Amino acid sequence: MSNGGPEIEQLIQLLARLPGLGPRSARRAVLHLIKKKDQLMVPLSAALDRAVDAVRTCEVCGNVDTRSPCGICSDPRRAESGLLIVVEDVADLWALERAGVGAVRYHVLGGVLSPLDGVGPEDLSLDELVARAPQFSEIVLAVNATVEGQTTAHYITDRLAGTGVKVTRLAHGVPVGGELDYLDEGTLSQALRARTEL
Amino acid sequence: MSNGGPEIEQLIQLLARLPGLGPRSARRAVLHLIKKKDQLMVPLSAALDRAVDAVRTCEVCGNVDTRSPCGICSDPRRAESGLLIVVEDVADLWALERAGVGAVRYHVLGGVLSPLDGVGPEDLSLDELVARAPQFSEIVLAVNATVEGQTTAHYITDRLAGTGVKVTRLAHGVPVGGELDYLDEGTLSQALRARTEL
Repeated sequence: MSNGGPEIEQLIQLLARLPGLGPRSARRAVLHLIKKKDQLMVPLSAALDRAVDAVRTCEVCGNVDTRSPCGICSDPRRAESGLLIVVEDVADLWALERAGVGAVRYHVLGGVLSPLDGVGPEDLSLDELVARAPQFSEIVLAVNATVEGQTTAHYITDRLAGTGVKVTRLAHGVPVGGELDYLDEGTLSQALRARTEL
Repeated sequence: MSNGGPEIEQLIQLLARLPGLGPRSARRAVLHLIKKKDQLMVPLSAALDRAVDAVRTCEVCGNVDTRSPCGICSDPRRAESGLLIVVEDVADLWALERAGVGAVRYHVLGGVLSPLDGVGPEDLSLDELVARAPQFSEIVLAVNATVEGQTTAHYITDRLAGTGVKVTRLAHGVPVGGELDYLDEGTLSQALRARTEL
């Protein structure tokens, strides 16, 4: 085995730990980086250096940004809607932002309750959520439609009951562009029950 | 859109240019890097810095390594077999090394002849190959079994005809573990013609 020195081997091993890349695709990626050294490898190295220094977690909502409070929490227009969207993960926050859900604020839980994985209420940013709640008129629980997600949603609803803030959840139904015969029964029956008039 | 500052956005865009990663998986990868800052992001940043400085192309064979001549070209035991394996790409060299083909040397062409893509003989390291040829007793053309690969193999055979070195190519046949009814007709007829006695 001579894959070109320990520096290259180590780079492959580190890239292989990224989600979506395995050892084989990490090797391809490293070769691509080496081929495009000036156009890709050098800028990527510099961008990573900058990100290592700059990235921090927002102390208010848990988003990642280069400042804390993050761009969303420090934008005064986002306070006007009175809407706080609770998500499991920063990836979900970014997905909602990409969907253009409007001038809202977020709260990143950092996971969902999962007794089997040893994740209890104290591991999530629930106290912070309860403390923030009175600033908002409505809290939308945008947790995943999994068993753990729904358990977490119920737990949060109980915790927020005392605050008097309205708590809602995302609608269940047929995904836009989705075909009915590929959908599971749970989604279909929920979509039928929540049918809307045309 | 507020994906957390220009540093994060730039990192996503650069990672999305790696083969096997698109914008969506690059975003997931960046979030993973941020979550595992100390275990993954910092080491990856350091490994990239080191690789940018260290990686070079071997001036003899075209392999990538941290020294030139590379580890393979400077290993005297690899001269004994007298075998030179010609490959299109460094990825192919690595694949053969992983397969443990033995103490051989390599020559990386840097591509295949492809008039449609504007790749002519002058774009490949063919003069270097002809110059190296007399040092070896046999040259194996391990180019891909594509039309371009086979055209390139014929061209190289012509170029090497004057050197008197024996030129061979990889065997065609049924891949180990392969099932006959998934194979194309070309492979099957080649495999039948090149059948060996048990």
